[in-house]
Amino acid sequence: MSLLVVGSVALDSVQTPFGSTADALGGSAVFFSMAASLLHPVQVVGVVGNDYPMDRLERMTKRGIDLTGVEHAQGESFRWKGKYSYDLQNRETLETRLGVFAEFKPQIPKEFRGARHVFLGNIDPELQISVLDQVDDPALVACDTMNYWIEGKRDVLMELLRRVDVLLVNDAEARQLSGDWNIYRAARWILTHGPRFVVVKQGEYGAVLVGADGIFYVPAYPLEQVFDPTGAGDSFAGGFLGHVARSGDTSGENLRRAMVYGSAMGSFAVEAFSVDRFDELTPDEVTERVRAFSELVRFDMPPVTESA
Amino acid sequence: MSLLVVGSVALDSVQTPFGSTADALGGSAVFFSMAASLLHPVQVVGVVGNDYPMDRLERMTKRGIDLTGVEHAQGESFRWKGKYSYDLQNRETLETRLGVFAEFKPQIPKEFRGARHVFLGNIDPELQISVLDQVDDPALVACDTMNYWIEGKRDVLMELLRRVDVLLVNDAEARQLSGDWNIYRAARWILTHGPRFVVVKQGEYGAVLVGADGIFYVPAYPLEQVFDPTGAGDSFAGGFLGHVARSGDTSGENLRRAMVYGSAMGSFAVEAFSVDRFDELTPDEVTERVRAFSELVRFDMPPVTESA
Repeated sequence: MSLLVVGSVALDSVQTPFGSTADALGGSAVFFSMAASLLHPVQVVGVVGNDYPMDRLERMTKRGIDLTGVEHAQGESFRWKGKYSYDLQNRETLETRLGVFAEFKPQIPKEFRGARHVFLGNIDPELQISVLDQVDDPALVACDTMNYWIEGKRDVLMELLRRVDVLLVNDAEARQLSGDWNIYRAARWILTHGPRFVVVKQGEYGAVLVGADGIFYVPAYPLEQVFDPTGAGDSFAGGFLGHVARSGDTSGENLRRAMVYGSAMGSFAVEAFSVDRFDELTPDEVTERVRAFSELVRFDMPPVTESA
Repeated sequence: MSLLVVGSVALDSVQTPFGSTADALGGSAVFFSMAASLLHPVQVVGVVGNDYPMDRLERMTKRGIDLTGVEHAQGESFRWKGKYSYDLQNRETLETRLGVFAEFKPQIPKEFRGARHVFLGNIDPELQISVLDQVDDPALVACDTMNYWIEGKRDVLMELLRRVDVLLVNDAEARQLSGDWNIYRAARWILTHGPRFVVVKQGEYGAVLVGADGIFYVPAYPLEQVFDPTGAGDSFAGGFLGHVARSGDTSGENLRRAMVYGSAMGSFAVEAFSVDRFDELTPDEVTERVRAFSELVRFDMPPVTESA
């Protein structure tokens, strides 16, 4: 039940109130696969420039992440530089240098084309469609997108959505895409345009899964220390798809569990810079955090006796 | 197990994208008691001016709400006028006329002094303390406050907190009070200053209960139509305290259930202007919505088999 991700492999320079990183591992495919690989092997398709510190990707291959689909192109690697506010609520992009990512044309290696589960990281929807044209018959396709494509390539994005099972977006993106500020109406609108499920991520609050058969809410894990929110969304997607791929179960019931794995992985991601937290993370720690969600939302409603 | 609320009895004029009201029933004691009275009888202490449309309070007495503690003073009633943004995310206060509320000195009628459960609505912490001086020995005291008192009467507020079991605030208030932007650290700080439990309300997202023995998260009920957010917090408090008073159980386990009743009542409040939604509301509808929360957060985590 192979799991394929197509997305960016980048170098992030991030400033938070707690410190900063320079050219640290980043990008949607990196966060996704570091999170997902704790649950299931991952195949990555992406591109790096000839300046990319390939030795530092060993931490990924060590995790069973297959990087043979990462193209090595002449030029600079994708770099992103950002700065967070004192309370991590807002971030400012200081610099984006696309480098070789600007010309990225995903080529899915022959041995990846039978992927059963596919995550399309946030790239041009035309490229996301080209990925789907290259894979055989996945059981579940999930994708991310962003304001830039919603505004600039709406028609292509809508064409993509018709071929996608799960759209994972944040609340602002769901609102922009649907033109509706109510996220539940927005999700319902999206459901009429292709996806069977919509995941609306709400950052520090949690995330909502909306499908034809109901709504599921998972809170964010309560953290007293957040170091760097970068990559939380892609790590969420990694936990979500990693669980689906591991179980091979795409039912709504199982997607509820996938949401909990997503929220757990998102919470690990923000506990350290870059993907550092995933290096040391053990399957037991993942299981423990996932189980903590049961306690976080647990309540027993006894038969109501009306004394009023 | 009587339930006492002390707070404002006001006239609200509210503009939302969906319409407007003029001099509608409002105020913390009104929202609180309309919500709570669906679960348990409520005793109200407050003040109105001689211009208050007393006949319109019949909807409260009809609900078993005891208004004999509402003082009739010479002068104008408390009026608030506000306007919400198109997405209901922001509101602007257009006018506040305290009227007789400016001179409000809560007098707890003798027959209310044995109250087992007390909610101190958002008023001057000096007055909140004076209420506690007048009641015998409540099993649980909960209070609300706001930025104005946190800034202007911090010392008195901290004195009040030492006598309170549950503080219910929104996230901005928790941050301001503790000086910490992380709401879990903020809540823990508050727990070291008196209350056994802190409820941090997060508006459209949900609410968190933090106590020494754990954290409980209840999402906001997913609504596709929100008409008027006014009074959601006080209705939450009404559901919370109403459940506690009805059950007579102040354990952490039962406060989890109380949170769900709180979130349910908050969701009803915003479905109509003023307290209109509570007029027609039946105990069955309340039970149905409370039970829907179980489904909203339900997931079954089967024994994990590591195939990775």
